[in-house]
Amino acid sequence: MDSIVPEALTAEAFAPFGEVIECDVGRAQTINAGTCVKFADLARLELDRDGGRAAMHIYRAIPLQAPIVVRRLERHALGTQAFFPIDNRPYLVVVAPAGLLDIGRIKVFRATGNQGVNYRQGTWHHFCLALEQESRFLVVDRCSPEADCDEIELPAAQQFLIKI
Amino acid sequence: MDSIVPEALTAEAFAPFGEVIECDVGRAQTINAGTCVKFADLARLELDRDGGRAAMHIYRAIPLQAPIVVRRLERHALGTQAFFPIDNRPYLVVVAPAGLLDIGRIKVFRATGNQGVNYRQGTWHHFCLALEQESRFLVVDRCSPEADCDEIELPAAQQFLIKI
Repeated sequence: MDSIVPEALTAEAFAPFGEVIECDVGRAQTINAGTCVKFADLARLELDRDGGRAAMHIYRAIPLQAPIVVRRLERHALGTQAFFPIDNRPYLVVVAPAGLLDIGRIKVFRATGNQGVNYRQGTWHHFCLALEQESRFLVVDRCSPEADCDEIELPAAQQFLIKI
Repeated sequence: MDSIVPEALTAEAFAPFGEVIECDVGRAQTINAGTCVKFADLARLELDRDGGRAAMHIYRAIPLQAPIVVRRLERHALGTQAFFPIDNRPYLVVVAPAGLLDIGRIKVFRATGNQGVNYRQGTWHHFCLALEQESRFLVVDRCSPEADCDEIELPAAQQFLIKI
């Protein structure tokens, strides 16, 4: 089985898939009588298309046991989905560009406990891959009466391991 | 000057002002092949009224020096504003019901580092009051070309201390 070594998560490398949510000094404003720095507008949220509404959840994820095998990906075609770690622990992000799934363009990133991600509409991604210990994430996504989640199982020959 | 001792933040006590965002077992669902508990739909977000859009920020707040004096409150009449602590530290929440500000109905809560709050549209509130150390918050609110923030300075005789 092939294996992929995660790369560090950066805004540039993640740009084809969405935004990295982090304290970006280029977006810093001082507010509240000088007692607070606001890092403003860190994700392009799209939550209200086709009768959807914005929703907020907490996910509490258990790390998968090694070896971590990527067998399937999912996407939300009608809205963005943002994850931010609230236990300051690293996690893995597995993505492929929106559109027809191109397995050759799957990327694996290792996020620090200070980085969130916002998946653009249609970005293929693996579910939340906590590392080290059980970890909570604050999640903001689109909620609608009809489910908006497509899943694809990778052909056995194209499933792969993540080397951590 | 009068002083107020904060009360513990609970969903019931906070209900007139919005929602407490926390791992509520009544909202737990198991997802992702049994590896994740989703605490679903924890806040009633209203972000798209009158041409607004959903926005996400990180606030990094410095604790005020004691004594903490409440001198002014603000409100966002057209949208909700959610705060979730991402450094697991407690903070103070000062609120009054939406509508004409009734100083007699101001409440002060102490939130744990595992509790967020979502201010309903129009809820009067003090800005982010970190405790102990500099603390980051993930913030989700309504963004629009026109500012949506009303501020009221309390008359000197009605300003008060928070006893912590």
